[in-house]
Amino acid sequence: MVAVDIGGTKTRVGLFRDGSLLFRTSFATKGLAEVVKALRVLLSRAKAEPYSIGIGAPAPLDMRHGVILNCPNLPHWNGVEVVTELSREFDCEVFLANDATCAAIGELEFGHRSPDFVYITWSTGIGGGIVSGGRVVWGVEGQAGEVGHMVLAPQGPHCRCGKRGCLEALASGTGIARAAAELFGRKLTAATVVRKAQEGDVAAQRLVLRACEAMGQGIGILWEIFEPEMIILGGGLTRSWDYLGPFVLSAAREFSRTPPRVELTPLGDDVGLYGAAALYKHIPDLR
Amino acid sequence: MVAVDIGGTKTRVGLFRDGSLLFRTSFATKGLAEVVKALRVLLSRAKAEPYSIGIGAPAPLDMRHGVILNCPNLPHWNGVEVVTELSREFDCEVFLANDATCAAIGELEFGHRSPDFVYITWSTGIGGGIVSGGRVVWGVEGQAGEVGHMVLAPQGPHCRCGKRGCLEALASGTGIARAAAELFGRKLTAATVVRKAQEGDVAAQRLVLRACEAMGQGIGILWEIFEPEMIILGGGLTRSWDYLGPFVLSAAREFSRTPPRVELTPLGDDVGLYGAAALYKHIPDLR
Repeated sequence: MVAVDIGGTKTRVGLFRDGSLLFRTSFATKGLAEVVKALRVLLSRAKAEPYSIGIGAPAPLDMRHGVILNCPNLPHWNGVEVVTELSREFDCEVFLANDATCAAIGELEFGHRSPDFVYITWSTGIGGGIVSGGRVVWGVEGQAGEVGHMVLAPQGPHCRCGKRGCLEALASGTGIARAAAELFGRKLTAATVVRKAQEGDVAAQRLVLRACEAMGQGIGILWEIFEPEMIILGGGLTRSWDYLGPFVLSAAREFSRTPPRVELTPLGDDVGLYGAAALYKHIPDLR
Repeated sequence: MVAVDIGGTKTRVGLFRDGSLLFRTSFATKGLAEVVKALRVLLSRAKAEPYSIGIGAPAPLDMRHGVILNCPNLPHWNGVEVVTELSREFDCEVFLANDATCAAIGELEFGHRSPDFVYITWSTGIGGGIVSGGRVVWGVEGQAGEVGHMVLAPQGPHCRCGKRGCLEALASGTGIARAAAELFGRKLTAATVVRKAQEGDVAAQRLVLRACEAMGQGIGILWEIFEPEMIILGGGLTRSWDYLGPFVLSAAREFSRTPPRVELTPLGDDVGLYGAAALYKHIPDLR
């Protein structure tokens, strides 16, 4: 089983056998040719033929036709018919799904293995994947789980999606960085803002708390709607969970009738890669 | 197949055969004895034995043990072990679920029959039921779908659940009536407020528009999270859909990246009764 996780900056490729990750490699995201090359290296190293290939990629994508659409972070991939191309190249079945949905499948098959949970990627953007009764909630075109585009603040900051006050605009890495640019008058990454907050910078603390407040509200909403066993978080911002977690949890408790159980993924940055490896088991029957 | 829908004011009882509603009756909600009596009358009229009984009742309830819990609108039912009692009385299987989840099952089996939708009851309270991939999203204890308790306005009005700014506090009949009492200094039902708004009363229009705005935001959130085929509305306030609908839909479009498809249930006030009749097909395996 071969898995590919195409990210905005990094592409991860892994080879799984009997449910274990045997070989993995990662490289700066470029185009399809680089993925093909990495897969060939991996397969020859493992002396394996691919049984199937699972691919996770950022939305928007056309799951029905296996095409990556105009994702601003993936200029080389716009319109690439990745399923057709790779299945021709490797003569095997190829499956494509949203990266956050892949992460949820990773959690279902290799992580906490809960049958009822919501997975949230808290990173540059905010994405999600949902599992209910042991099954992925796919939606009509496989695009369900867009928790980052819940509008929490109708008068809030503009989101890159065109709406205002989406969770992503309020709490993502990009959202934090944009608020910091307005407040400090210079470019700062979200990681820097969080570090400044931890060091006691009051202005940075205000920005971070606002983001945690929005994330807590989003978690509260998901907790009420799904009555899941747990909410699972992954993504770059969870590296600062020791600092951010208590604020998020306190807010989430205020916004739910029962205290949400929130866990971090034990699979770290490979959660999407694990999910891509098990994607073939969960492909929906799109009508 | 026998179905019971216990509501805050009315209890509906129906007898189904071969997927059709054969006999129905309704009466002011009292206690279990009245339900037993109504069922006996119905069964003797139809010369039928009950194969199974499905019951919908307002949350909170303990689905696992078949008990109706402390619902403020159902004082006679607090702690009643309705599943045990009725299965002893009629010597058949009895199933109990949240009324809004029953309504969603009614929609799935007898209404629009979509495999991917969210059902919302817009009435005295706001409840919901979710179907994804043709299956009910139950949650861990069968309590998923509480769309009325999404917090949309953290600084908003108090909700009877203890939180602030829930969709239910902002947009339900109770919420509209409470806002009207504050604004007009006297008791008005939500229906009266809507009528006054339709007649041109500007203050009433402001209240109604705020409620529609919140409902549109809630619909937008559900549209993003589930990517459903449609959102289906039922409940008393949808009787004024000609007036309320355009406001709700305009708001919902602002809060979603693609325009949500919103439909009214074709089953009217019996949607929950229909769902209760088909509940036996959808009972989850609670762990």
